[in-house]
Amino acid sequence: MLAVFDDRAAVRHALAFEAALARAQADCGLIPAGVADEIVEASAAIHVDPAALADEAAHAGTLAIPLVARLKAALRDKPAAADAVHRGAASQDLADTVMTLQAAAAAAILRADLTRLAHALAVIAERHSQTPALARTLLQDAVPITFGLRAAQWLAAIDGARRQLDRASPEALLLQLGGAAGTRAGLGGKGEAVAGHMAQALGLAAPLAPWHARRVGVAQLAASLGIAIGMIAKVALDIALLSQNAVGEAREPAISGRGGSSSMAHKRNPTGCQIALSAATRAPGLVASILGGLAQEQERGLGGWQAEAPVLADLFMLAGGSASAMAAVAEGLETSPEAMARNLEAADVGQDPGESAAIVAAILEAYRKEG
Amino acid sequence: MLAVFDDRAAVRHALAFEAALARAQADCGLIPAGVADEIVEASAAIHVDPAALADEAAHAGTLAIPLVARLKAALRDKPAAADAVHRGAASQDLADTVMTLQAAAAAAILRADLTRLAHALAVIAERHSQTPALARTLLQDAVPITFGLRAAQWLAAIDGARRQLDRASPEALLLQLGGAAGTRAGLGGKGEAVAGHMAQALGLAAPLAPWHARRVGVAQLAASLGIAIGMIAKVALDIALLSQNAVGEAREPAISGRGGSSSMAHKRNPTGCQIALSAATRAPGLVASILGGLAQEQERGLGGWQAEAPVLADLFMLAGGSASAMAAVAEGLETSPEAMARNLEAADVGQDPGESAAIVAAILEAYRKEG
Amino acid sequence: MLAVFDDRAAVRHALAFEAALARAQADCGLIPAGVADEIVEASAAIHVDPAALADEAAHAGTLAIPLVARLKAALRDKPAAADAVHRGAASQDLADTVMTLQAAAAAAILRADLTRLAHALAVIAERHSQTPALARTLLQDAVPITFGLRAAQWLAAIDGARRQLDRASPEALLLQLGGAAGTRAGLGGKGEAVAGHMAQALGLAAPLAPWHARRVGVAQLAASLGIAIGMIAKVALDIALLSQNAVGEAREPAISGRGGSSSMAHKRNPTGCQIALSAATRAPGLVASILGGLAQEQERGLGGWQAEAPVLADLFMLAGGSASAMAAVAEGLETSPEAMARNLEAADVGQDPGESAAIVAAILEAYRKEG
Amino acid sequence: MLAVFDDRAAVRHALAFEAALARAQADCGLIPAGVADEIVEASAAIHVDPAALADEAAHAGTLAIPLVARLKAALRDKPAAADAVHRGAASQDLADTVMTLQAAAAAAILRADLTRLAHALAVIAERHSQTPALARTLLQDAVPITFGLRAAQWLAAIDGARRQLDRASPEALLLQLGGAAGTRAGLGGKGEAVAGHMAQALGLAAPLAPWHARRVGVAQLAASLGIAIGMIAKVALDIALLSQNAVGEAREPAISGRGGSSSMAHKRNPTGCQIALSAATRAPGLVASILGGLAQEQERGLGGWQAEAPVLADLFMLAGGSASAMAAVAEGLETSPEAMARNLEAADVGQDPGESAAIVAAILEAYRKEG
Repeated sequence: MLAVFDDRAAVRHALAFEAALARAQADCGLIPAGVADEIVEASAAIHVDPAALADEAAHAGTLAIPLVARLKAALRDKPAAADAVHRGAASQDLADTVMTLQAAAAAAILRADLTRLAHALAVIAERHSQTPALARTLLQDAVPITFGLRAAQWLAAIDGARRQLDRASPEALLLQLGGAAGTRAGLGGKGEAVAGHMAQALGLAAPLAPWHARRVGVAQLAASLGIAIGMIAKVALDIALLSQNAVGEAREPAISGRGGSSSMAHKRNPTGCQIALSAATRAPGLVASILGGLAQEQERGLGGWQAEAPVLADLFMLAGGSASAMAAVAEGLETSPEAMARNLEAADVGQDPGESAAIVAAILEAYRKEG
Repeated sequence: MLAVFDDRAAVRHALAFEAALARAQADCGLIPAGVADEIVEASAAIHVDPAALADEAAHAGTLAIPLVARLKAALRDKPAAADAVHRGAASQDLADTVMTLQAAAAAAILRADLTRLAHALAVIAERHSQTPALARTLLQDAVPITFGLRAAQWLAAIDGARRQLDRASPEALLLQLGGAAGTRAGLGGKGEAVAGHMAQALGLAAPLAPWHARRVGVAQLAASLGIAIGMIAKVALDIALLSQNAVGEAREPAISGRGGSSSMAHKRNPTGCQIALSAATRAPGLVASILGGLAQEQERGLGGWQAEAPVLADLFMLAGGSASAMAAVAEGLETSPEAMARNLEAADVGQDPGESAAIVAAILEAYRKEG
Repeated sequence: MLAVFDDRAAVRHALAFEAALARAQADCGLIPAGVADEIVEASAAIHVDPAALADEAAHAGTLAIPLVARLKAALRDKPAAADAVHRGAASQDLADTVMTLQAAAAAAILRADLTRLAHALAVIAERHSQTPALARTLLQDAVPITFGLRAAQWLAAIDGARRQLDRASPEALLLQLGGAAGTRAGLGGKGEAVAGHMAQALGLAAPLAPWHARRVGVAQLAASLGIAIGMIAKVALDIALLSQNAVGEAREPAISGRGGSSSMAHKRNPTGCQIALSAATRAPGLVASILGGLAQEQERGLGGWQAEAPVLADLFMLAGGSASAMAAVAEGLETSPEAMARNLEAADVGQDPGESAAIVAAILEAYRKEG
Repeated sequence: MLAVFDDRAAVRHALAFEAALARAQADCGLIPAGVADEIVEASAAIHVDPAALADEAAHAGTLAIPLVARLKAALRDKPAAADAVHRGAASQDLADTVMTLQAAAAAAILRADLTRLAHALAVIAERHSQTPALARTLLQDAVPITFGLRAAQWLAAIDGARRQLDRASPEALLLQLGGAAGTRAGLGGKGEAVAGHMAQALGLAAPLAPWHARRVGVAQLAASLGIAIGMIAKVALDIALLSQNAVGEAREPAISGRGGSSSMAHKRNPTGCQIALSAATRAPGLVASILGGLAQEQERGLGGWQAEAPVLADLFMLAGGSASAMAAVAEGLETSPEAMARNLEAADVGQDPGESAAIVAAILEAYRKEG
């Protein structure tokens, strides 16, 4: 996930944007195919030092200016190509498309980890569908449950999070191409076609219209990540509570080199849960940061959208880190039916788990139906 | 919107929950129909002072305890009915269902105001589809646009917000019925059927499973409200900026008694925009509050879910207030094509609005298709 | 605390503002004393329906306009007085001063509850300064501690929160008087003196300068409340964790009618802790809402400051509710040295509490020194 | 500022912690001076690859474990020293002290930039103390003001932000040393003295008591940064609004390579203001993240405190970037008294700036008094 958001990936996506723009303009008859070829080749061949570019971008206030300058310099012997680079595009077209390409790559990784986590939870739910356990409400002993129902509820949480991420993605993972002010001026009246070609080349959907100052898709994606992080943390908190020595019903698998204490050699800390709970401490504020920038000025805002990319990257990294850590926890979760039985016995609330089995079955069935 | 969330409405929904529970248990053969009739009648006839009940609920830590006590007292001469009240339900079943019923009522009002706002913006977009204007990016004069494109982008923002609210609602507006710990114990193995009957009676969807500690639906709804508030504020900020005296391209309609200044009689303040911008100042934090409570403990959390209802109410009231204020603004928006032309002229950036017309047409077509 | 922030209190403070303004102008020779007397008398005698006023204020976009209209109407037979009402003041002068007066009243209540809570924790720390207990880190059993050290750390948390609230208050509880744009025009060159007189009459400090669009004091106060709520919640979470049946080292006092369950008669829920934890779920977002409005436009912002008063009221109500609930919990906390000893024994980590006693003594001494 | 928070600085501070711990233990007679010398030398001589260490720390869940392992390995020929490394300390002691050392370095940089910004604003306030200008409230033309008063209010905002940062720092920049559970066990009863020596060696204050799970200082510091960012953004928003072409009263200085547009060569964008406004979009959520972690469990929390360091680093980097960008803007701000006069004339609200001059004088005097 770190690689998805590092400066090298950003440069690679930015060059892909410029190449796709040139190719699409050629496809639409706006520039000669040979000129596009030259730009595409230069984009592939050019070596850009990501750190130096980041410094210049910070100074210029935009990534596009120093990047385009380098491409043009590389094409200084091919004036028609140098002249055609970035034509019709604005800095934000480049920045938004880079952010979208990174988000698409990150979403694929996250989805895989959520799927892994869901699968592991489904296995636990099924294995323990009849294992008696004690429910706890408001942190107090309550009534009987099955451990399988607890795990099935975790599964439903993760599955729900995954579903809403899937729904948010198509609205968010869109090409941006609007030019200086979202009118697609300078593209010879073929802006929509150019955008369509570019989107296809880059593996993104084409938007209904340029969306420079209308960030509903980004906001939905961010909110979905925040919700996913929250749902993963719900699982983590439950496991951490079950891992308390006085409870002892479950604990994280022993992973070599993880969960130790620098001052207490005997401890096994719930480090996977810690990752997820730490992420959930940060996520709500990050989502608020995205929402706080939605009222963007006129045809291109001042400050709001520039704040989005690092925040979205943080959300993806926290979500990915949580999902991956908790997938490992769930896959190796150590459970103690003995402790569950002992705690249930001590609570003296009988043995009736109600419709636990039926609810587990319903959750598993819904989970399997969607695959 | 205030009426949707006042204490009287909460009491009404709470009594409807108890009546529906009794009726559903009778339908499923768990209690005699006559006993259910008595509960239903008592729920309809009882007079509850909302303020007194709220005080007792605050002391008890839950609304259900004092409400159920009153219902049982009202049925003291009908012991079978008194005994059957609230059977199989937990406090959170009642609280969550009340919150859901309020949210459903609020969502209907909000949807109507968003529809009104979208319609008014569509009218502006169409009327000004050819009106030359000046785009502004990073608060600086940029290149030509049409005023219609600006309004069409506002429309797309509101329409996008409305669509995602529509998608969030079915996952959020769910009956809650799980009993003491989400196992539906105490319902004679007919819990799923009871829940189905109740949901139908109350006009809600039945959930896949009890969702006491799995709040993905609530979180999605809250996020959708936050996004809608942000999109409305985008429109408001643009109109406020266009209303600056030095710009003068648009201003809020004069509404008797609104927008005055207690110290400057000559002013007409953008009060509708102020409502929307003030709401957008508050919304991100409110969404963060909901997300911050997602990691709820075990089978019923301590603190997280109890924080949701007032926050969700605030979000609905802010969204509703914004949508309604900006619908009035959009319906009566005063525009000045002369000022637009003058400002465009002064910027000296030519007259080419690019593909503004085509983009307006695409946005209007998409808007009309969904109706 | 509810009474501090209800509409009646707002009206009372608003009338006090107008009376103090008139009296101060008379003191500075700007209007005759008799005219000021008439305004002061009318402010005392007038009956205003808070609900009707709130409706009109919502429509007008400001409280001042309908309130001043009523005062002028009440003085219609005294034209000099009617004419002098509100002279030199702006709507925001009134609104900010009302907010400040409410905050001052709320801060006094909160301080008393924090003092009560701190005192109760100091008693526990002292009583249990030698009681062996088991420390837990990352929710895992760790090493020996004393229960007194745990309580002393709670005390230090509350005391720290109280201290920073005390520091934030003087910068926040300031009169506002700047007129139409913060220049104090219309006050005959005596604006500073008028502000000084008004501040004294209202029991507030006079600001260095009008602060309409410079909200550092409000933000500090809000942040201090958020921190206080967080510190109270730290105590609450610890007590709730100690109250788990499997731990059993402490629990909330039994309070008649509190902490029951509508579905499980045997339970005693940690309802005081729930109040504090629910407040802490909401507070971070509320503080973010205040911070999110800081970039206010020019000489009076559009939206940002209008969002503050309801958020600040929420923060005070949550802080007050938490402090009061946890003061009751701490005053009656039931502790079980037997359970502490048993859990320590089971952990098999020896009996050495390190410098627990010295740390308790240091915390108690610092607490007592400030009184 | 980036260098303050990079992995190399963290490693350097971590080694300084271990060296100071060893030296302090020797000073207190807990280990021989020669053993401390060996540890100090090894800490200075050891070469640690920051990236590799970061990976291992992420896996272990704590920085201390892999770092201490390396130090011990480096001392493998000096068993007494190897054995004494990190003795009496916990992972969080190291992590918190590293965070504090980074914060102290960052606060010094930030303070210098805020001082620069304040100075530049004071110069503007003084220079324009008599320059007539037009106040704007709710984005509408209001009444006369001086441009000096506007700048003086900016100065007061920055000065207020700086003052509250100065007040927050002493409570936050504290050594951490509490051992496995905050009891300072394992330090031979000399924990307080060891902490005192270490604090002095590292240039930090010694805390009243270990503060592992009591984070009031961190929260205050974070809130102060959020408020400072908000105040800087207030200045930025005003300048951006004054820079609108239709207003033209001020604009950012031309800085070579900054503020250009990749699609509109004629534009000069307010890039410094953009940096500040983008920071202010992110800051409220980051502060909420810190506040959201305050309710930390027992003697060392699970997730809450681990979330703090990256968030605090982000806040410092945003504050530093804003302060530095806006200092450059203020130092070179281009103002147009002609445009101010023209806009004031057009508003037709007379020429009376009220007590602007006196307020400017009062703000400047207060600013100079503290120096």
